[in-house]
Amino acid sequence: STRLTWSLYTPRVINAEKSEFNEDQAACCQISIRRREPGLEEDEEWLILCSTQFLTGYYWALFDGHGGPEAAIIASNYLHYCIKQKLEEVVGGITEARPPMHLSRHCVCDSDPQFVEEKHIHAADLVVGALENAFQECDEVIGQEMEATKQTGGCTALAALYFQGKLFVANAGDSRAILVLKDSIVPMSCEFTPETERQRIQHLAFLFPKLLDGEFTRFEFPRRLKGNDVGQKVLYRDYFMEGWGYKTVEKADLKYPLVHGHGKQARLLGTLAVSRGLGDHQLKVIDTNIEVKPFLSCIPKVNIFDFARHDIKEDDVLIMATDGLWDVLCNKEVAHMVRSFLAENRTDPHRFSELAKRLACRARGKKRGHQWMLDDSHEASYDDISVFVIPLHNRDED
Amino acid sequence: STRLTWSLYTPRVINAEKSEFNEDQAACCQISIRRREPGLEEDEEWLILCSTQFLTGYYWALFDGHGGPEAAIIASNYLHYCIKQKLEEVVGGITEARPPMHLSRHCVCDSDPQFVEEKHIHAADLVVGALENAFQECDEVIGQEMEATKQTGGCTALAALYFQGKLFVANAGDSRAILVLKDSIVPMSCEFTPETERQRIQHLAFLFPKLLDGEFTRFEFPRRLKGNDVGQKVLYRDYFMEGWGYKTVEKADLKYPLVHGHGKQARLLGTLAVSRGLGDHQLKVIDTNIEVKPFLSCIPKVNIFDFARHDIKEDDVLIMATDGLWDVLCNKEVAHMVRSFLAENRTDPHRFSELAKRLACRARGKKRGHQWMLDDSHEASYDDISVFVIPLHNRDED
Repeated sequence: STRLTWSLYTPRVINAEKSEFNEDQAACCQISIRRREPGLEEDEEWLILCSTQFLTGYYWALFDGHGGPEAAIIASNYLHYCIKQKLEEVVGGITEARPPMHLSRHCVCDSDPQFVEEKHIHAADLVVGALENAFQECDEVIGQEMEATKQTGGCTALAALYFQGKLFVANAGDSRAILVLKDSIVPMSCEFTPETERQRIQHLAFLFPKLLDGEFTRFEFPRRLKGNDVGQKVLYRDYFMEGWGYKTVEKADLKYPLVHGHGKQARLLGTLAVSRGLGDHQLKVIDTNIEVKPFLSCIPKVNIFDFARHDIKEDDVLIMATDGLWDVLCNKEVAHMVRSFLAENRTDPHRFSELAKRLACRARGKKRGHQWMLDDSHEASYDDISVFVIPLHNRDED
Repeated sequence: STRLTWSLYTPRVINAEKSEFNEDQAACCQISIRRREPGLEEDEEWLILCSTQFLTGYYWALFDGHGGPEAAIIASNYLHYCIKQKLEEVVGGITEARPPMHLSRHCVCDSDPQFVEEKHIHAADLVVGALENAFQECDEVIGQEMEATKQTGGCTALAALYFQGKLFVANAGDSRAILVLKDSIVPMSCEFTPETERQRIQHLAFLFPKLLDGEFTRFEFPRRLKGNDVGQKVLYRDYFMEGWGYKTVEKADLKYPLVHGHGKQARLLGTLAVSRGLGDHQLKVIDTNIEVKPFLSCIPKVNIFDFARHDIKEDDVLIMATDGLWDVLCNKEVAHMVRSFLAENRTDPHRFSELAKRLACRARGKKRGHQWMLDDSHEASYDDISVFVIPLHNRDED
């Protein structure tokens, strides 16, 4: 089967300055979703087993841990199970052209199909809902597990599911998935960081000021304010502003900002570089009682790619990678490397794994003295780097 | 001057079934923003008057009232004043290539310009911030004024500002602005309705359940549930879901949903068809103590069109209209009417006002028996219809 052809490369050499473990984790498996015969009750389980049919999905996921690898390890062992469970709960609706109003298909109201049609509800919406619920359940399990074992930490989660002719990519964090097609690049995720989610985070602090315990200001300023800024009008943004304004600085504005810094330096409560992910239930701002979790979201944004609407070529691939890759390589550079490498190595049976390795090594750079440098003499990535290369052609061949 | 060439058409004939007044209001004016000499203190006001310079903006706005015309009338008299005020407060920053960290330009920190540059803050961001703040201030004033005069009601607000070579369109509600250019249509706003803002509204109810006073359910279902749905698994969405799931119906789910209905029938708390706008401070759900205002937002989304990046042709126009027009005509139909009418009437000095009238009359339809019908025998708009046609060519000629 070519279905599970994929290639992951995770070099284990670079993160030494931050932690002794590689905090990236990866998972990949086939997911079999049991399709219940409609109308059977729980106690007729033996009948179900006799007539079981399965729907098959294919799953790849990357988890970038922080504060230790534990959350990423649990997520890599458990998220696909949550997804399987949530899909099984709604499978009766997924196999219909239009999901029925009642999962039992016992209509209470004659115009049920019309209401479902008006809301434009399709089978794919049930898969999206299952992924959203699965992330939330996995987050709860991680919270329980980490509390029970007195461990701490969290992780980002990027999961791809090929199911019923569509690719679903669910993302919570700053990893990224893109499709590199012959003539185009299709972004399949966007990054959730304190900077991209500033307004959501500030709004929560506006609604619940106690969450900041008097230690932080919810306003954003271009830089940390100082004593001699007091009384001056400086650039600022509040939760409702995409634009900027000027605010007369008061003493309270000198507190550390809720969201601070720019780009890779942006931090939530001076603590975290991501605003979505799993875990971190016990995380507090250092030397305070302020919890970070209320500002985090475990809900993924799901993007769908429908293969029925595209003519997939032999070298078309899905690239999934943690921020270690994307910090130093942009989509265009990655796409260029993908296309030229695959065109030059059409007969190599290991070309996808070789490509994953090339991408990771390119981002890792080369050691020159004490520094890791890219080819163009920019600094290389010092973060963990994990890369999936997943070919899209011949998906359904055996 | 051709600068203030524009044409508004508001037929007053149709809304009779809903209210005896046309609840649409329009405003249009030149806004002169006083540019203070930097470094002058408040008590040197006389010096300011001696050296005053003005920046000029051009302003058009539509307000679609509900529950009476009063909020729309106040907004049409006051919003441009709020915008002028907010722009004057930041004008020292607008006239710089990069707004300075300190409005006084007295730098406290040498790297201030670098921080501003890293955050990509431009003069246009100050205009966006001024518009966001102006809407909020106008909403407060309407609240005070309506309370003092014991009036009720609210309105949507769509405001366009041509300023410093850019067009800023700020929208809170379900009116719409589009640019009809020679070869393209550029949407300049998106609609805010209980349906488009479902997740924001449900999330607020999740955070503050008391706002629903036990009378509403925050879950969305494709239709209103009935007694015999209890115990069944039905399609639903919660605040964190873009997809759909199945939920076992409990008795509490039979309550009226916070957001209910589809398209033009979608309602917030069974009461309002829009989720953003000005006013409604006193609005309660009928026969209850439940306030609607906490779920409404007065903050506009601002879109920018930079004329420096486009080659504007003679027939290119900005179309602004209330939902009465867009309910029955799509962007493409409007663009087709605009292009063909203007091409056929190139020499008519009143062609823009004639076009506004044509657009409104087309949406109003023709009376056949007791019904107003469109040309294609679909039902015409029964709502108020207001249309601005604003030519974009020769903007800065006198």
